[in-house]
Amino acid sequence: MLISILMLMAFNRQNKVKVIFFGDSITQAGVNPGGYVKRIDSMSRQQGKLQYEFIGAGIGGNKIYDLYLRMEDDVLSKNPNIVVLYIGVNDVWHKASSGTGTDADKFAKFYQAVIDKLKAKNSKVILCTPAVIGEKTDGSNQQDGDLTEYSKIIRGLAEKNDLPLVDLRKAFLQYNLVHNTGNKDRGILTTDRVHLNAAGNQLVADEIWKAIQAL
Amino acid sequence: MLISILMLMAFNRQNKVKVIFFGDSITQAGVNPGGYVKRIDSMSRQQGKLQYEFIGAGIGGNKIYDLYLRMEDDVLSKNPNIVVLYIGVNDVWHKASSGTGTDADKFAKFYQAVIDKLKAKNSKVILCTPAVIGEKTDGSNQQDGDLTEYSKIIRGLAEKNDLPLVDLRKAFLQYNLVHNTGNKDRGILTTDRVHLNAAGNQLVADEIWKAIQAL
Amino acid sequence: MLISILMLMAFNRQNKVKVIFFGDSITQAGVNPGGYVKRIDSMSRQQGKLQYEFIGAGIGGNKIYDLYLRMEDDVLSKNPNIVVLYIGVNDVWHKASSGTGTDADKFAKFYQAVIDKLKAKNSKVILCTPAVIGEKTDGSNQQDGDLTEYSKIIRGLAEKNDLPLVDLRKAFLQYNLVHNTGNKDRGILTTDRVHLNAAGNQLVADEIWKAIQAL
Amino acid sequence: MLISILMLMAFNRQNKVKVIFFGDSITQAGVNPGGYVKRIDSMSRQQGKLQYEFIGAGIGGNKIYDLYLRMEDDVLSKNPNIVVLYIGVNDVWHKASSGTGTDADKFAKFYQAVIDKLKAKNSKVILCTPAVIGEKTDGSNQQDGDLTEYSKIIRGLAEKNDLPLVDLRKAFLQYNLVHNTGNKDRGILTTDRVHLNAAGNQLVADEIWKAIQAL
Repeated sequence: MLISILMLMAFNRQNKVKVIFFGDSITQAGVNPGGYVKRIDSMSRQQGKLQYEFIGAGIGGNKIYDLYLRMEDDVLSKNPNIVVLYIGVNDVWHKASSGTGTDADKFAKFYQAVIDKLKAKNSKVILCTPAVIGEKTDGSNQQDGDLTEYSKIIRGLAEKNDLPLVDLRKAFLQYNLVHNTGNKDRGILTTDRVHLNAAGNQLVADEIWKAIQAL
Repeated sequence: MLISILMLMAFNRQNKVKVIFFGDSITQAGVNPGGYVKRIDSMSRQQGKLQYEFIGAGIGGNKIYDLYLRMEDDVLSKNPNIVVLYIGVNDVWHKASSGTGTDADKFAKFYQAVIDKLKAKNSKVILCTPAVIGEKTDGSNQQDGDLTEYSKIIRGLAEKNDLPLVDLRKAFLQYNLVHNTGNKDRGILTTDRVHLNAAGNQLVADEIWKAIQAL
Repeated sequence: MLISILMLMAFNRQNKVKVIFFGDSITQAGVNPGGYVKRIDSMSRQQGKLQYEFIGAGIGGNKIYDLYLRMEDDVLSKNPNIVVLYIGVNDVWHKASSGTGTDADKFAKFYQAVIDKLKAKNSKVILCTPAVIGEKTDGSNQQDGDLTEYSKIIRGLAEKNDLPLVDLRKAFLQYNLVHNTGNKDRGILTTDRVHLNAAGNQLVADEIWKAIQAL
Repeated sequence: MLISILMLMAFNRQNKVKVIFFGDSITQAGVNPGGYVKRIDSMSRQQGKLQYEFIGAGIGGNKIYDLYLRMEDDVLSKNPNIVVLYIGVNDVWHKASSGTGTDADKFAKFYQAVIDKLKAKNSKVILCTPAVIGEKTDGSNQQDGDLTEYSKIIRGLAEKNDLPLVDLRKAFLQYNLVHNTGNKDRGILTTDRVHLNAAGNQLVADEIWKAIQAL
């Protein structure tokens, strides 16, 4: 009992486990009420795991190279203990929507460079695959091929760098195979094919929270 | 015996069953030695089915609306008995390679307009789905999502118009699941991810020849 | 006086000069109050030129091949005396915004095919160049190069087919060189870089009305 | 005479003025015989200006963010006295050719970040505008609008950072207005609309060599 109290005392503000969520608009919205970061924060408190401090670092429209550009200011300077990388949707999506996506080989290169900088700062890193651009389960969402390819790249980087992976793309597909029998393109885990509704935020929160605790 | 002779005589030049293959560069190459049109022609002769005349009408780079524009000159004016429609790769591919693909809703609209004109001329019509842009079997070819969607559109048009369908996309995937265990992006049925090698031409020839005979 | 009355009587409904404006969303909005078609209609009445009947045939998102597809239903079946062709913005714009623009060579081909069908119906044809995607006058709007190229194609077709040309692209640039000294990308003749505000609708109305009367 | 000898001795290997050309395939080819870097090297020697050491650091397909990613290894680690930044063609071009160009706002951001890192290393910096994608002089090359915009961004950065500018885009246009009266898209200063022929390499060499000497 005394030990528990001492342990809790030890996790004062200075000694908190700082977790930064580094990503795009999905993560930017994640810190809003109902967002996945907010949900992880709530879950951790409810479970009495008070040692964590959760910080959102998501900016709309970001691709992997935007993360690389701003990581000194927005992540490294804050000395995080854990960084959750959740990026890739815009790298694929912007090819079609504005002609400014990211080539697969450069995606891999910048992603590795982000990992290297985090490791050099002794931060633990959790990788996430980009979930969906469209929720149809029959493989007919326009970007399904590319999202699968970029997810494979991230899975490969997790393995190569021996890092934990939260395979959101796989989790979303499995969820939708059960809950999206109508093959709809939105409305099950997203509001608009990309951004998370309540169920989507909860699913992401559950998956990432598991990975954080497993570190 | 006499009847057979009379039958063969009846299929003189004027009375041949004229089959036009209407498509893009894949069909343009199809009339070359080893091409799928040439192979159908050879198979039909070997099987003693001499009543057919096979004509290639493929032009490189064509999309569905290019077929619509030139169908009077290249197809209708020749009074075909059967038209095999094999189109869709460029409608999808050119989105990424030059920004000039075809929107899905317009693809469906022009495709239906082509069918309507052929039907109005009392031509029988066989629809084909676009096979592949990349032969990987794990769904990670860049255009897999879109090709699947455009194939669904064609399947829907076949059903709606009560027309026979040669589902090349399905046939290629099934073949590759057996023969492309290394998940290569080319070299099994194509030379370059899109255009057919010998095995690809034979597979297309077999599938379409079955459909022609089933009419 | 008697002659005038007889003339007016002669222009009864059946004998009106039917003018169809064939285009995209700019023309679709042109029939609304304040739109360029509405303005031409008002000007003609104010000038006592009552022999015209003006009909809008614009649909949002249309490119040259969409006009070709629907011209039988929307234009030819109405036996127009004059058709004003105003198309090209989406053929260029959609390259960047959705990967579904129109290649320059195919733009020229379909444009000629539309002209041919109108001529075959003995309709007079007026060609317009696409005005602007962005109003900056220093040549730095993203699509300036392509819009200039597609305008050159239309100018060439006007010359080759001996048809009157309303060079809106040139007119807009000249107007903006005077009125847009701040090099703004919108707000002078358009509301949003593409669609016409009151001044833009009036400029288009003036230019086209001159061309109609000059026939 | 003695002074000259002493001066030459002073410019031994350690004390040479190290100039790095940092860019894309145009610069990668610049170190080949006849290339612009090679020409600058030859001119400097012929003029007896032996204090310079010229190093090419161009990689095909590079955009501004690729330079940012590799600048530590390829530029900063070599402690250059002068860095010539010549980038931007792929940032614009790849929008249409593969859907992977660079948004204008991000181009500006990464470009500034590259400048900042060079300044922090006390390197002098020379900026170049991207010359051409197509040599037509009437503003009808597909990317003319965008290239003009990105050149404006670079001109703005030169002014804001008080850095010398080599305005290759302007120089190429002026040259072509005289020498390309046929409005050809290639063959005057480029071989293929983008990469430099002998005249193009000489023009670039002349312009940059002037700027280096003016530092």
